[in-house]
Amino acid sequence: MKPSDDIVPAFDPDEACRRAMDAGLVVHRAHPLNCETSIPALIGGVVMPNAQFYVRNHFQIPVLDLSAWRLNVGGLVERPLSLRFRDLHELRSQAAAVTLECAGNGRSGFDPPIEGEQWNLGAVGTAEWTGVPLVEVLHRAGVKPEASELVFRGADAGALPGRTETIRFERSLKLEDATSSDALLAFAMNGEPLPVQHGYPLRLIVPGWYGVASVKWLTEIEAVDAPFSGHFQVNAYIYEWERDGEVVSEPVTLQMVRSLITEPAPNEEVEGGELAIRGVAWSGAAPVARVEVSIGAGPWQEAHLVGEQTRYSWQGWELITRIDRPSTIAVRARATDVAGRTQPDEPRWNRLGYGNNAVQEVSVRIS
Amino acid sequence: MKPSDDIVPAFDPDEACRRAMDAGLVVHRAHPLNCETSIPALIGGVVMPNAQFYVRNHFQIPVLDLSAWRLNVGGLVERPLSLRFRDLHELRSQAAAVTLECAGNGRSGFDPPIEGEQWNLGAVGTAEWTGVPLVEVLHRAGVKPEASELVFRGADAGALPGRTETIRFERSLKLEDATSSDALLAFAMNGEPLPVQHGYPLRLIVPGWYGVASVKWLTEIEAVDAPFSGHFQVNAYIYEWERDGEVVSEPVTLQMVRSLITEPAPNEEVEGGELAIRGVAWSGAAPVARVEVSIGAGPWQEAHLVGEQTRYSWQGWELITRIDRPSTIAVRARATDVAGRTQPDEPRWNRLGYGNNAVQEVSVRIS
Repeated sequence: MKPSDDIVPAFDPDEACRRAMDAGLVVHRAHPLNCETSIPALIGGVVMPNAQFYVRNHFQIPVLDLSAWRLNVGGLVERPLSLRFRDLHELRSQAAAVTLECAGNGRSGFDPPIEGEQWNLGAVGTAEWTGVPLVEVLHRAGVKPEASELVFRGADAGALPGRTETIRFERSLKLEDATSSDALLAFAMNGEPLPVQHGYPLRLIVPGWYGVASVKWLTEIEAVDAPFSGHFQVNAYIYEWERDGEVVSEPVTLQMVRSLITEPAPNEEVEGGELAIRGVAWSGAAPVARVEVSIGAGPWQEAHLVGEQTRYSWQGWELITRIDRPSTIAVRARATDVAGRTQPDEPRWNRLGYGNNAVQEVSVRIS
Repeated sequence: MKPSDDIVPAFDPDEACRRAMDAGLVVHRAHPLNCETSIPALIGGVVMPNAQFYVRNHFQIPVLDLSAWRLNVGGLVERPLSLRFRDLHELRSQAAAVTLECAGNGRSGFDPPIEGEQWNLGAVGTAEWTGVPLVEVLHRAGVKPEASELVFRGADAGALPGRTETIRFERSLKLEDATSSDALLAFAMNGEPLPVQHGYPLRLIVPGWYGVASVKWLTEIEAVDAPFSGHFQVNAYIYEWERDGEVVSEPVTLQMVRSLITEPAPNEEVEGGELAIRGVAWSGAAPVARVEVSIGAGPWQEAHLVGEQTRYSWQGWELITRIDRPSTIAVRARATDVAGRTQPDEPRWNRLGYGNNAVQEVSVRIS
């Protein structure tokens, strides 16, 4: 598509919520829209259609006018830039299938329970994103040697409990993470212009990282020389535990290794005979090495990885087995990546409820 | 998605035509629906959204009831099969991005002109198809050693000029082509159930071949021991020339090497300064080795191939250049595959107008 400065997409938040429900998404909050994919709705391919892709928002969705929109690149750079959408389009672009997962995906599985959006397991999806490699823009701006981090600012902002000032959505990446992660400044999703709720006109996509790093409605990149301390960097999106009476914390970064069972659906009744168990698996740190499935209380059996492996997209898997006797059985799946990380049996509880990558179990009724 | 036997998709041919026009497709015929993508609508990624994917039909679109639908596999096989949709779903499945192109794509560019759908250049598209590898089903049926071809039958049929009997859409593949081509029995397109106009519930997808091989609304596979002589095998979809007063012909098989310029659009007016020239390139026989671009009457310059290369999907390319002086210039693009095939300057005329892969030229006005 040739970008034009006069596209202003129509967007009605109520209509967006109705459409999400029509598409089978599970809506957690209508304003701002937060909704997840129903896992059994995954059809077994790689990409999720845009209409069924999970949505995670912190503030009301901003609707940006392309003629006024700019991507400003400033701070510690040799040549500050103010790029129009069409300028950006004159740089080299590329497409990649990338899996995004919300760091809070699976939060509803922690015990004791944790406040926040009660995501089940569907705050994850894969799309083909098209855009300009971040490094192309950084190269044009010329990041100064003293810069250590890049701050990415979205156009979304709002009030937060206990805070009097308006908080903007902003996140930083260490410079080496920003340049080595194959990050894209994406303007398209599955071959269509980026939908409004997914960050129109421009979204940073950081492959391998939890979704919070992929800042939507991006308008500004600032190179800085000190650790950034914005709200979503230091108060939220951190793992926090007590150890020996002391609070320790770590930032949320790469997606933990995880597999999901997409078929059968939980508590589904299936006919006896051949049984196909299918799902997806991913890890932010390294490619998936194997997925194992346990049926009943049986041993772990290795599943078959299906389709082409690409660097940043989840991997399909399946195990075809036979169960003839009517019964109710537990099916579990466990992924391991090539770096040797594997899923734990129980979630690692942390105060804000991030990174639950425990082994999933579904119950299946054989009739 | 868990397939269910009670899905019957709503389908109204008039509505399908209106929707195609709304999605920006160029409609050549409404009944049966034949429409192509507007090439500048390609957004530079790999997949085309389902709503914008070209549609080529020979007969009225059949709307199949999934509870009555079967895939029958018979003829020279050890174990004839009659598979329900759910049986098929219990076999191993996989996803692949595959480019389909109509053999008549570019027919409007032949001189002297040729009858038939007057396709410009947009009867081509790439989607992620998910389905069961054809070899899985053949393995279950056990093809007998004396079989030499497989005949694939769709549920579409109708009248043809000069023929009194009803003609069914059926095509054959030599057994070795069927088993070595990574053919899929596809039930999903870009993560959604196959749309009705693209062959719901099941379409054969033969990667690398012109679209005619990818039989829609598939209901039957028959193993035979003699060359198949159905209408769409021997009367249509053949290259036919006169040489030394004799008619010679060859079947239409693999997609010819080709590149398309998606940006700028033909006769587009662009501002002077940086100019991005972008497109896609593909070849059925082998991966694309290079794409070259000529500006004005200038020399061929090598374009940059963008994104991941996958086996059966078109490849994005781009060349960023600078033109400051107001002028009208001709831009041409030429692809070459790793087997050394390259695009000709002029189309190779043949009686039915297939396989026009001549170098494309667009005129661009620099202001």
